Amino acid sequence: MQVRVIESKKVYSGAISMRRDRFAINGRVVEKEIVEHLPSVGIVAVREGSLLLVEQYRRAPDMTLLEIPAGKIEQGETPRQAAVREMNEEIGYAGRLKPFLKWYMAPGYDTELMHLFVATDLKKAKERRDMDDDENIVVRKVTLATAVKKCFNGEIRDAKTIAAILAYSHSA
Amino acid sequence: MQVRVIESKKVYSGAISMRRDRFAINGRVVEKEIVEHLPSVGIVAVREGSLLLVEQYRRAPDMTLLEIPAGKIEQGETPRQAAVREMNEEIGYAGRLKPFLKWYMAPGYDTELMHLFVATDLKKAKERRDMDDDENIVVRKVTLATAVKKCFNGEIRDAKTIAAILAYSHSA
Repeated sequence: MQVRVIESKKVYSGAISMRRDRFAINGRVVEKEIVEHLPSVGIVAVREGSLLLVEQYRRAPDMTLLEIPAGKIEQGETPRQAAVREMNEEIGYAGRLKPFLKWYMAPGYDTELMHLFVATDLKKAKERRDMDDDENIVVRKVTLATAVKKCFNGEIRDAKTIAAILAYSHSA
Repeated sequence: MQVRVIESKKVYSGAISMRRDRFAINGRVVEKEIVEHLPSVGIVAVREGSLLLVEQYRRAPDMTLLEIPAGKIEQGETPRQAAVREMNEEIGYAGRLKPFLKWYMAPGYDTELMHLFVATDLKKAKERRDMDDDENIVVRKVTLATAVKKCFNGEIRDAKTIAAILAYSHSA
């Protein structure tokens, strides 16, 4: 398979950007919008056999969702540093982080690659950093069995959270 | 929790659009980019105990990925009609479709809601419709056990595909 980029044009720049690519794939020309999003981290945070999840209002679906702690990797951070920061900000814990899986969130049109970690040996963070200004988070401690059940009964409706919980459950 | 939208401004319109929302959450003002994407379908297509997956070049990550068949719900389609169409276009089969799960792809900034179906009793489609012009697809038949293994060894790197395979495996 041969891919040749003909034109790549930024059509919006912001915290998230959008570009329009024209490219030839095996000689056939395609035009496509691509969302440019920084890579990110997600964390399966395990405490006393339960998972620490976060409940927060999400503007895009206009509803409150139950998710794993997650967030962008900021400029200059390694994935591990971002995971440490997000755990501090979102759940107020530090812990032992182990890289687990990596996945694209929506590879049909979005560049975001998420690095998933498992965090164990959790300890309350001494100093808790301010959350990002749009975070409005309630931490929920849920047994692994209940978390798995919520993936199937509609209480969890976020792809990364379902993938993370079922992957951790499969490996645990 | 109280949410009040102050301003919502379209900043790019296309097959995928982008808007910038200003809203107050419990009185605190937040500004955020939101990607507007049509709802979609994904299909766990089961044939003789194996899954039919699709391998295709994806421009956003600039690589070839192994994924479940999936695509947008076009104007006027029900989720089921879209699933029938995508199965025809992407893998060339018709089958018995059962709704399974629903999830947001990236609810932190993206409106896309995916309806996941399980398809069984697969039969080769009599007439195969043209694929979308950017689809360049090779169908792969993979046993369920191998598909699960690929979720963990890095051969599958797509969040929806990992969520779908592990959810189906957990329920099978």
